[in-house]
Amino acid sequence: MKDLLNEFENYLLVNLPSSKTFHPNFEQALADMLQAGGKRFRPMLLLSVIKSNKSLLIKNSLPVALGIEMLHTYSLIHDDLPSMDNADLRRGFETLHKKYDEVTAILVGDALNTEAFNKIANAPLHNDVKINLIKCLASNGGIDGMIIGQAIDCYFENVKLELSQLEYLHIHKTAKLIAASLKMGAIISEYDSEVQEKLYDFGIDLGLLFQIQDDIIDETCSSEEAGKTTQNDEAKNSFVNLLSLDGAIKAADKLAVKCEETLASLDDNLKQSLEELLLKYINRHNS
Amino acid sequence: MKDLLNEFENYLLVNLPSSKTFHPNFEQALADMLQAGGKRFRPMLLLSVIKSNKSLLIKNSLPVALGIEMLHTYSLIHDDLPSMDNADLRRGFETLHKKYDEVTAILVGDALNTEAFNKIANAPLHNDVKINLIKCLASNGGIDGMIIGQAIDCYFENVKLELSQLEYLHIHKTAKLIAASLKMGAIISEYDSEVQEKLYDFGIDLGLLFQIQDDIIDETCSSEEAGKTTQNDEAKNSFVNLLSLDGAIKAADKLAVKCEETLASLDDNLKQSLEELLLKYINRHNS
Repeated sequence: MKDLLNEFENYLLVNLPSSKTFHPNFEQALADMLQAGGKRFRPMLLLSVIKSNKSLLIKNSLPVALGIEMLHTYSLIHDDLPSMDNADLRRGFETLHKKYDEVTAILVGDALNTEAFNKIANAPLHNDVKINLIKCLASNGGIDGMIIGQAIDCYFENVKLELSQLEYLHIHKTAKLIAASLKMGAIISEYDSEVQEKLYDFGIDLGLLFQIQDDIIDETCSSEEAGKTTQNDEAKNSFVNLLSLDGAIKAADKLAVKCEETLASLDDNLKQSLEELLLKYINRHNS
Repeated sequence: MKDLLNEFENYLLVNLPSSKTFHPNFEQALADMLQAGGKRFRPMLLLSVIKSNKSLLIKNSLPVALGIEMLHTYSLIHDDLPSMDNADLRRGFETLHKKYDEVTAILVGDALNTEAFNKIANAPLHNDVKINLIKCLASNGGIDGMIIGQAIDCYFENVKLELSQLEYLHIHKTAKLIAASLKMGAIISEYDSEVQEKLYDFGIDLGLLFQIQDDIIDETCSSEEAGKTTQNDEAKNSFVNLLSLDGAIKAADKLAVKCEETLASLDDNLKQSLEELLLKYINRHNS
């Protein structure tokens, strides 16, 4: 798994977008947030699926992995803007609107959104495959996916949501891009549509599980224990506030069991490849 | 030409993006700026080229025309934001951040950027053609195109540019998307690469011509005469301020002659189709 991550990081380093221009800092601003790191979780999901049965295609798929990371990175840059989360730090670095200005942050985000599709369109893969990848990324990263999730998150910041609405929010804001990363790996690996949909559904469960776990950590851990700023805010739309701590733990465990069952039902190569990446995330509280 | 425009407007009306959700106004906000009109100049360029030799493909190309209009519309929404032009009105309607809020304007823009590629990927055209269209739109609408032009425009708002830099700015901010619209029409129509590049270069000249003409109108017309707010601001980076009014008129006329010559050199169908759309724009001051 470390090899895959290294391969991705090396590819990213020599493929940072370049704007070859007299603007004094746009190119640097573009590189800043892409280089700031993070877990590269979505690219690793894609590449792990490909590794399971078409490892020879990993190299040709790196532009697709970078495209997904670009779309994710742009969403973080825009989410951090003053009119949204107004965050000063991201991945331990100053956010772009703090380091440069708001114009730069908006435009770097816009550029990465567009460039994600450029990377995929230019990958050395079959055009039929690339069109399916672009459809998958655009439909899960756009109006019916990540964007509407973020719009709901912002709009209902101070309005109580029902459980089904909170699930809808996080499925769209977070889980759909995770699901798309898995499915895009399956598209490149030529898994049949049944496996593609199974991995997609698995990604939705996984994304939701992460969010409930996050809410539990916010409630139960100090900032030091969690390694990040935790908030225990009763007005917040969280699974803990809606279900109680106990209810949230039960919901998380139920999803973890479901995720383990799905993993167990996959063919051996796929199971092994994904378990290597994921088992540390899918831990039950009651076990 | 009116028929083409009607066909596009009808297609747009029944294909407005839908988000099917409990967010009270995101879907409406998305529709607002797309429906606010404008000349639909870029879609008409695309469709006019297709009309010249593959009119049977016009219907299948409407999603591509809408994709281009979406990318253009998102750029207007983001350009109008408080941190950029801070505009209250666009196409006679309240800008999205005025009517709703900044979050909505940023996210509607983001959604339209992504959806542009979704529309093209889902058009009933051959996958090889669609990959070429996506490459063309993404490379001209992104980091090396529209975005870097806008970034330069904002960064150098109060810093004097040289002529070559001002040309670079407007070629990137405006002309490249116009050029891409023509080239994408040529890709769909299966014109050979020589014609594709000729139309692309023609689009660059055309975009630059429009900008110089705009600067001349700003200098010479009252707001009533121009039908829009004109500014005669000596600190502004404009072709009139750099070349003098007389020099700007000469530069515009030179470009107009070049555009006319390119039009005249095209095959008869293409020439006729584009002249119908364009001749009213390419007028010389000294003739």
